[in-house]
Amino acid sequence: MPSDPAAAPSTPTQRRLNPDDRRAQLVDAGLQLLKSTPLDGVSAPAVAAAAGVSKGLVFHYFPSQRELQAAVASAAADELLDMFSSIDPSLDYVAQLRAGLESFISYIEQQPASYAAIARDAGSDDLLRHVFERTRDAIVVIVANVVGLDEPTPVMRLYLRGWIAMVEETTLQWVLHRALTHVELVDYLQSSAFDLVARAVRARPES
Amino acid sequence: MPSDPAAAPSTPTQRRLNPDDRRAQLVDAGLQLLKSTPLDGVSAPAVAAAAGVSKGLVFHYFPSQRELQAAVASAAADELLDMFSSIDPSLDYVAQLRAGLESFISYIEQQPASYAAIARDAGSDDLLRHVFERTRDAIVVIVANVVGLDEPTPVMRLYLRGWIAMVEETTLQWVLHRALTHVELVDYLQSSAFDLVARAVRARPES
Repeated sequence: MPSDPAAAPSTPTQRRLNPDDRRAQLVDAGLQLLKSTPLDGVSAPAVAAAAGVSKGLVFHYFPSQRELQAAVASAAADELLDMFSSIDPSLDYVAQLRAGLESFISYIEQQPASYAAIARDAGSDDLLRHVFERTRDAIVVIVANVVGLDEPTPVMRLYLRGWIAMVEETTLQWVLHRALTHVELVDYLQSSAFDLVARAVRARPES
Repeated sequence: MPSDPAAAPSTPTQRRLNPDDRRAQLVDAGLQLLKSTPLDGVSAPAVAAAAGVSKGLVFHYFPSQRELQAAVASAAADELLDMFSSIDPSLDYVAQLRAGLESFISYIEQQPASYAAIARDAGSDDLLRHVFERTRDAIVVIVANVVGLDEPTPVMRLYLRGWIAMVEETTLQWVLHRALTHVELVDYLQSSAFDLVARAVRARPES
């Protein structure tokens, strides 16, 4: 293959890919965009430009912008869940919870505008809402497992859903105002989780 | 005035009102709609039908649907803040906090779909986001006052913003699954507030 750049075609990356790879390439371009723009900015033209392909090709894989955005949001959620699942399960549960919180905080901190926009835009769109419900429920199960429950009780689930919303909002506010150091923030959220688990276990052991 | 209904005009409530009263009438019609539909359902035609006036009249007062919806969301937020400000200030702070929580839970419980939709749709619209930011900040000040602070410290503000998100989400989840009794829910949210205030005071008294 010639290495002379002048010989490259005008859209250099629009080479042939199998459908799965092409779809993955487009979603990945969307994920990269999401680091700097809210989900509304992840449009077919923006993804096409970022991936160096035609808009038509994007529309071929994602007939509507909402489907494109749902696929990108879903991939972003998978990134988050992957961070959790890469935590060493041989750690004690205090260390696992702390590592999980560190991951969650870093994830939000890297893309606060996108995170806020995804979490909130999700409310007005069924596809996106589904992605976020699924992610939050997965986090509930992860935290329940960390504290030794196979399946969260209904009360634990209720408390943990509220706690996740608290972690999200506290971290988003912390990014804006930095009223605590990073360590203090993690300490605070960690203790709030322990309070909640203790309370769930104490209050209604049968639930 | 004749009482014969046949003599009434075809749009009986489209009588002359001064501009302030007319605007208030339209916002009130929107507020009533909001009890049963998410904010997206509060459209100019729906408000016109509910108020018994022409769509043109609604557009005269609210040139865009977003302005109409922002006015209705703002009035809904004022309803919530009015519930808080009607709490007897001579009660001790435990009783005030409990009364505030009861009000907040009832408010969400009466209109869970609308509450979720407003809170979430707000993220994708600057006008609505402003309404919600203002309301949540007002709640922070109310809770800080209840525990005896004129002005919340930055750390207290951070904790309380997170706590409000927790109260919202816990209550929305509770409405769906009722994993606790009403009293247990209030007890739980109340203790979580005490934990948080104690922690804020203990952790960084100077902040």
